[in-house]
Amino acid sequence: MESSGNGVVGDHTTPVDKEVDFANYFCTYAFLFHQKEMLSDRVRMDAYFNAIFENKHHFKGKAVLDVGTGSGILAIWSAQAGARKVYAVEATKMSEHARALVKANNLQDVVEVIEGSMEDVTLPEKVDVIISEWMGYFLLRESMFDSVICARDCWLKPTGVMYPSHARMWMAPIRTGLGDHKVDDYESAMDDWGCFVDQTKTDYGVDMSVLTKPFSEEQRKYYLQTSLWNNVHPHQVIGTAAILKEIDCLTASVSDILKVRSKFALSITTENTKLCGFGGWFDVHFRGRTEDPAQQEIELTTAPSTDYNTHWGQQVFLLHPPICVNQGDDLSVSFLMVRSKENHRLMEVELGCEIQQHTGKLLAPCKNKFYIE
Amino acid sequence: MESSGNGVVGDHTTPVDKEVDFANYFCTYAFLFHQKEMLSDRVRMDAYFNAIFENKHHFKGKAVLDVGTGSGILAIWSAQAGARKVYAVEATKMSEHARALVKANNLQDVVEVIEGSMEDVTLPEKVDVIISEWMGYFLLRESMFDSVICARDCWLKPTGVMYPSHARMWMAPIRTGLGDHKVDDYESAMDDWGCFVDQTKTDYGVDMSVLTKPFSEEQRKYYLQTSLWNNVHPHQVIGTAAILKEIDCLTASVSDILKVRSKFALSITTENTKLCGFGGWFDVHFRGRTEDPAQQEIELTTAPSTDYNTHWGQQVFLLHPPICVNQGDDLSVSFLMVRSKENHRLMEVELGCEIQQHTGKLLAPCKNKFYIE
Repeated sequence: MESSGNGVVGDHTTPVDKEVDFANYFCTYAFLFHQKEMLSDRVRMDAYFNAIFENKHHFKGKAVLDVGTGSGILAIWSAQAGARKVYAVEATKMSEHARALVKANNLQDVVEVIEGSMEDVTLPEKVDVIISEWMGYFLLRESMFDSVICARDCWLKPTGVMYPSHARMWMAPIRTGLGDHKVDDYESAMDDWGCFVDQTKTDYGVDMSVLTKPFSEEQRKYYLQTSLWNNVHPHQVIGTAAILKEIDCLTASVSDILKVRSKFALSITTENTKLCGFGGWFDVHFRGRTEDPAQQEIELTTAPSTDYNTHWGQQVFLLHPPICVNQGDDLSVSFLMVRSKENHRLMEVELGCEIQQHTGKLLAPCKNKFYIE
Repeated sequence: MESSGNGVVGDHTTPVDKEVDFANYFCTYAFLFHQKEMLSDRVRMDAYFNAIFENKHHFKGKAVLDVGTGSGILAIWSAQAGARKVYAVEATKMSEHARALVKANNLQDVVEVIEGSMEDVTLPEKVDVIISEWMGYFLLRESMFDSVICARDCWLKPTGVMYPSHARMWMAPIRTGLGDHKVDDYESAMDDWGCFVDQTKTDYGVDMSVLTKPFSEEQRKYYLQTSLWNNVHPHQVIGTAAILKEIDCLTASVSDILKVRSKFALSITTENTKLCGFGGWFDVHFRGRTEDPAQQEIELTTAPSTDYNTHWGQQVFLLHPPICVNQGDDLSVSFLMVRSKENHRLMEVELGCEIQQHTGKLLAPCKNKFYIE
């Protein structure tokens, strides 16, 4: 034996196995290396830093809850902005590093680091602010917002404020060379398989050809149907972008985000090009709440940008093969994202697309299944 | 949030969480891609193929149990060699592919594929042969032999035969350039960290320097203390090899393999060279049992070889820095391998080394901790 890689098991219709979830998910956050990667994302850091320090009125003298504090950075900033008390909840052993960091920055009288799942933690009071950096790839991967919702419903005062307060998912048509590489990889894997089947028959007397179809399906999923992390260049965006989900962090429930279903229209704005797929990203805003707004609204966007890349990048959903399109072509897109049955923190996407050319001609619709792993 | 990689949790003093174990371990074997990698290892394939077909007397008319059948190859060969009945146990959904393969090769009347953990399976009879390819990196990684022992104690007839029948762990002194790269990687990671600490203080008002020590420890573990998969060239072996563990598969108990403790002597056989670390590998033999021996003894070795590389390669344990040695120098090595507290399928190694130069001079002893991840 001896293989590499990892997999996950579970069923979102049954309760999540907490031990499995810890093994599969939380442990990645127990490494300082990963914390450093997030702390080195300047778009992320600047947005939260400015959101806090340009809206000190939300923090001064207040009680704050940081959901998934990691190294403790948001809790520390909240304290530096004048919070009376900050509860910093962290599920992993990273809590010990957070506690050390809090002490080294002389904030141990304000910031209390609590190791535990947000769902299990008891606080001595309700809080004025819940701050959290809960966003995964394409916003909802990781399903961590569930824990923020839980924290909000249990511990936020009726007058409390969410940081961030709003979130949106976006999608746009793109061109990219990634698809060609992936098709090459897939075809090369299938060529290898063919040789393997022949050799196993010749040398070892076993006919493996019955496994060719399932192997092909496994490889198609891996190479062609798994969405890709990519920093899309703005020049690769060949049409308008659409919002496919808006979340009010103060009111959203888990049932609002379990499934994301959207139909939206996109227009090609580039002449004579190829529609190679779709890029997905998100933004969040820090606006406070209507009765207690931000003094400075801050935006954190992960949209394609020449200057401001984030560790989230964009998620790319490839079409095989690409479709020739032209300026003025209209795309009607249907999007459905659900959580994976095997792991509630991963996603499955169904993406349908109809194209009406600027000449009026309708192309055959396409429908594709993708996995956000 | 959003990080990559994966981790594992558990405690070998408490019972293994089966769901976590499945998520972390078994699932990797549910991919045909990984099965193909193992089925393409010709050293592995030839050894089992020859062991079966050159010892048909062990199989003809007999009941066979294949522990962890995967794609079903060993069960199929056992049937082709004349077995009356083969029970092929597989914990993952790979069992469905195995069943299809058995049928496609017209052996469905002989081979019965059973999906389940070996520990949970009930057979209708005791068997004459237990065959299994249970070996992990450096033999014992994965701790899969536990399941073979369990199968043997429950289901092997008193006269039964184990395939393989014997296993050994080996170690030899090596020279390699891998260590320099790893030290460079480590130092570069620490330089990055230094810049990161400065920038976080300057730009975001938080002093991260308290985390420098734990970050350094994390990175040392990752770059310098994790054993490496490598195909060591025989020219890189600079001294004699020693056996540090022998296992009789017919009699070994789990307590015999929980800890591997060994003291052994190695001699440098190369002039003026550098001891950069140690290479570890294993071999297994198919000898039948004393009263019912193999007609042809077969060996499967994963020793360094110019011609016969395996997917197991060798495990390399690096010394930092390397030590100048010469022909005739004698090494006294103490070796202790235990299962990781966090995951019973991973290993932790303590490796001590004393060098007596051929001149008689004793060098300062060194002691290192390693992780087989």
